[in-house]
Amino acid sequence: MITQENIKVTAYKSDGFIGKYQKLIRDTVIPYQYSVLCDEAPDTEKSHVVKNFENAAKALHGEDVGDGFYGMVFQDSDAAKWIEAAAYSLALYPDEQLSATVDELIDKIAAAQDEDGYLDTYFTIKDREKRWQNLLEGHELYCSGHMMEAACAYYEATGKKKLLDVMEKNAEHIYKHFITEHNEGVPGHPEIELALMKMYRTTGNKKWLLLAEHFINKRGEDPHFYEKEAAKRDWSVWGNNPTSHDYQQSGKPVRAQSDATGHAVRAVYLYTGMAQLSAKCGDNALYDACKRLWESITRRRMYVTGGIGSTVIGEAFSVDYDLPPDTAYAETCASIGLMFFANAMLKNELIGEYADVMETAFYNTVLGGMQLDGKRFFYVNPLEVVPGISGVSPTHRHDLPVRPKWYACACCPPNAARLITSFGCYAYGENSDMGFCHLYADGEVKFENGMELICRTDYPYDMTVNYSVVKGGRLAVRIPGWSDTFTLVQNGEKLDIKQINGYVILAVKDGDEVQLTLSDTPHFVYPSVKIPAVSGMAAIRRGPLVYCFEDADNGNVLSLALKRGGKITVCEPDTDNPDGITRLKVEAVRFEDNNKPYSFDEPKTTDTPAVAVPYYTWGNRGENAMRVFMPLY
Amino acid sequence: MITQENIKVTAYKSDGFIGKYQKLIRDTVIPYQYSVLCDEAPDTEKSHVVKNFENAAKALHGEDVGDGFYGMVFQDSDAAKWIEAAAYSLALYPDEQLSATVDELIDKIAAAQDEDGYLDTYFTIKDREKRWQNLLEGHELYCSGHMMEAACAYYEATGKKKLLDVMEKNAEHIYKHFITEHNEGVPGHPEIELALMKMYRTTGNKKWLLLAEHFINKRGEDPHFYEKEAAKRDWSVWGNNPTSHDYQQSGKPVRAQSDATGHAVRAVYLYTGMAQLSAKCGDNALYDACKRLWESITRRRMYVTGGIGSTVIGEAFSVDYDLPPDTAYAETCASIGLMFFANAMLKNELIGEYADVMETAFYNTVLGGMQLDGKRFFYVNPLEVVPGISGVSPTHRHDLPVRPKWYACACCPPNAARLITSFGCYAYGENSDMGFCHLYADGEVKFENGMELICRTDYPYDMTVNYSVVKGGRLAVRIPGWSDTFTLVQNGEKLDIKQINGYVILAVKDGDEVQLTLSDTPHFVYPSVKIPAVSGMAAIRRGPLVYCFEDADNGNVLSLALKRGGKITVCEPDTDNPDGITRLKVEAVRFEDNNKPYSFDEPKTTDTPAVAVPYYTWGNRGENAMRVFMPLY
Repeated sequence: MITQENIKVTAYKSDGFIGKYQKLIRDTVIPYQYSVLCDEAPDTEKSHVVKNFENAAKALHGEDVGDGFYGMVFQDSDAAKWIEAAAYSLALYPDEQLSATVDELIDKIAAAQDEDGYLDTYFTIKDREKRWQNLLEGHELYCSGHMMEAACAYYEATGKKKLLDVMEKNAEHIYKHFITEHNEGVPGHPEIELALMKMYRTTGNKKWLLLAEHFINKRGEDPHFYEKEAAKRDWSVWGNNPTSHDYQQSGKPVRAQSDATGHAVRAVYLYTGMAQLSAKCGDNALYDACKRLWESITRRRMYVTGGIGSTVIGEAFSVDYDLPPDTAYAETCASIGLMFFANAMLKNELIGEYADVMETAFYNTVLGGMQLDGKRFFYVNPLEVVPGISGVSPTHRHDLPVRPKWYACACCPPNAARLITSFGCYAYGENSDMGFCHLYADGEVKFENGMELICRTDYPYDMTVNYSVVKGGRLAVRIPGWSDTFTLVQNGEKLDIKQINGYVILAVKDGDEVQLTLSDTPHFVYPSVKIPAVSGMAAIRRGPLVYCFEDADNGNVLSLALKRGGKITVCEPDTDNPDGITRLKVEAVRFEDNNKPYSFDEPKTTDTPAVAVPYYTWGNRGENAMRVFMPLY
Repeated sequence: MITQENIKVTAYKSDGFIGKYQKLIRDTVIPYQYSVLCDEAPDTEKSHVVKNFENAAKALHGEDVGDGFYGMVFQDSDAAKWIEAAAYSLALYPDEQLSATVDELIDKIAAAQDEDGYLDTYFTIKDREKRWQNLLEGHELYCSGHMMEAACAYYEATGKKKLLDVMEKNAEHIYKHFITEHNEGVPGHPEIELALMKMYRTTGNKKWLLLAEHFINKRGEDPHFYEKEAAKRDWSVWGNNPTSHDYQQSGKPVRAQSDATGHAVRAVYLYTGMAQLSAKCGDNALYDACKRLWESITRRRMYVTGGIGSTVIGEAFSVDYDLPPDTAYAETCASIGLMFFANAMLKNELIGEYADVMETAFYNTVLGGMQLDGKRFFYVNPLEVVPGISGVSPTHRHDLPVRPKWYACACCPPNAARLITSFGCYAYGENSDMGFCHLYADGEVKFENGMELICRTDYPYDMTVNYSVVKGGRLAVRIPGWSDTFTLVQNGEKLDIKQINGYVILAVKDGDEVQLTLSDTPHFVYPSVKIPAVSGMAAIRRGPLVYCFEDADNGNVLSLALKRGGKITVCEPDTDNPDGITRLKVEAVRFEDNNKPYSFDEPKTTDTPAVAVPYYTWGNRGENAMRVFMPLY
């Protein structure tokens, strides 16, 4: 087995496609999100998260809590995710002012921590007695998990330890409550499992590994835990049903689970923790369960865009092959979680498929979750919108045709921010004698093992990737499953090298130039006939990018059908293109509408080119119809 | 304007396609449904409706109410619809035992009527003080309306007046409450409007016309009525939102309404009452509103099968063109109500389109709501089911792949029974000097005006209709919009006659033979590109029948695509066919599944004939996939 760790977040710097996004996060998203957290952003849903920490500190001192708690039960996590994003950004772009702002917020968080280590503003402000009574809905472990991730990130980025100390004290409290004192109960919303794995990596304290293992092993051991817990209290947050075992991923011990079920974000956060634990401990039974769950997701319950959790009802996985494009939920956070899971699976086995899915989720659903200007966000990522229906029809209310500024439940925007700022940790990996290139990301990377690379590429639009080796060693480079051909040239010489499980491994010396050329042919993507909602249709993909069709380029998209096997050409860049976005032109026909709902007359067609734009760029030109899957003619 | 009335239910007798259905209702459905009403059907949802009447009588006498009330707030209406069906059946097939059973039930209903004429077991048993406090949810006027319809039907069929007396007393009570004493409030679930129109026709008492007119004119006059009503009480049945004005069809006065909105059954029941009133009173503003609502439904909110109310959320109309095949609601009762509306529109203007829609709704959604053996029923009529998804996925729970026996909310089965047993009233109409043939229904018809016809046809499978004129007069015969050709032969001579608005009018003498031949060519039906859920697909229709494809005939239906413009042939009857059902064979291809969710490889195809069966027969051979709209190749 090839061991592998994430690179440090400081190890990757970019001015290319990813670097531009990272700068957008730094310049626009992080300041904007902080103004939201402080309730200073105009025309935006109130957050109150900073005030919640201030008020919780007052509550701890028996002072009047002012305007009390406001927001979701998991509101604290918005601050945590923002700190994590800010930390990664500081790692890339040191900034004293931002650092001071984070420190100030950390002071407030520290002040909101109870003497015994407990940290959660909702319960601290509202009713201290209700702590740990409602794991099903209370999100206390979820919020702790996010704050642990933030603490590790900020420590890694700045060396500052205050938040990490707070969260070690919090972890001690949790350890005491859940292992020493009670030995029952698992998080309603998994997250702390993967966070504890990060705490272990950051601090080396094995206690956090044991606590992560505890929560993972405990899950589903008593399928009726949440029912018993509910029977002991006379209150609830939302009235969630404690008997929905599959929804809670708690009906069976995790090693016996096979189908990805329930709330999609919770599921992939859990599976990520499981995969990290199996990689760390070599737990094959756990990895086998992860593989089954991976297959359940990627073979039967995933959109072509890497979106998962197809149903709005419970923000959840549906049954196999139930993947409607227009009523899709496909939460941005769920695809971010899928990237976590994929990255953790790569640490178990070097299999290109894991990186393929990670890449599909990133370049399509995750990036698509954010407006190109970084100012608006999708929570829900449909594969088809039709103005007048999407966002309006009772079954399509969640499928908005344009990105809103912020949400009352604001999990996705800061989640995207922390993902993008730490992109290097997904793109690259390392062990003592090898550097791993999972995703093709322009920039410089310095491995802990001493290797150094400079990667130059216009990926995801140009499929040529150039590596200049500054410090040599062994390099594992992924060959994506979507590329039917590849050539690898080292110092001008074409290598005759075979990929194994989607990777080629080569020795590189200081000063070597390695060029990887992947297929840049656009392809039709045919969905399985088992997916009824899109059977007989096709999508378009080029490299990692899934494309879509919008009215803005095509007039009425609903009247178009692509010619079966028609030619797809890459548009020359022109002045109409939004900056740097490569469009595709596809042979198509336009149906003439005969203005009847149903007609015996075959609609007349005229040949027309249809113009496709990358899915991640959709909805940036006002409200219009958008389709990923198109009928064929 | 051509005036026109329904024929009497006794005036049409049939041994053909319709007659067989009427005998099925007589022999199977009516006895079975009565056993359900009496809680004597095995393995079936409890009804308790008869017991409710018994217990209400006890409540009126201050006696112990035993097991009290059970069921929906509108449970009484199940008994009413059953009586109405039994009455129509008795009109066709006198049956002393059935008549005695109905009389016995009527005695129980009469005993449950309060001294002041009030009749509703829910409130009589549960809390007399809550009468008329909750028009939004209480369904008292709805139940009264159904019982009025039953009373008229039973009187018309048997001449027995007891139930009619009960319901006139009830109508007096309602008149007093809603006009004399309060002059505010309209039914939450319209139905009584059309029932009062029937009471007026049956009794000639103009008071019932005025009461119908009152409820219609009052509607939407004060859009906030339900909110005010809700503010006055501290209880609700289901927590319905009183501010959903569009859902209640109460946001505007009816003459100002243009979009068919809200609960679909309520909507078409209301529109039926409106259309009946406009025809009766020559109220053009009201008819104009009916025409706008008709167009809203039939041009933009109706399935190709005549199904309406596409969304499960509220059993309601969605927005324009939101007509998903797989998550369709399309309640059987809504299509029955659409037939009512269409029939009432025909009384305003002799326009074939009204009858076209009435026919489409009947031969597809209404008949499809019932198992061929009359023993099981669909409430919801999807245009696509996929085992494993339909009935299982959170968004498809209502779309069952096989018909259940009965429902806790059992509106549809008795509604279908009363519709089918009174089919003649939809097929034929009359005035003093003309007979109207709206639908082609084998059998004998005796008009009040003295005309008599014998119609012989194997319609809906054979498109030749033979009329033998027993007693002559003037005949208005519909030429359906779906028939691109027609020939009309009178006594062996081809008539050169033009249709006007979908009808031909001809003079016929005693002994004349008139033969109408319509097109029997099967056609592809192309949906408008404005309907995103099926754009680029096509359905098949022959005559009035929409066809569908099932696994039972085809293996995996999801792997089929019809050849664009492919030949559609009528299958020769063979031993495999369920009795008398004509199948179609369509040129098609089968896609080979490459067992990946998404693939660059165009799936291999093999030519294959695809076999289609009439939509109304689907789901009669166990659980399997079914599709109306198919991809094209």
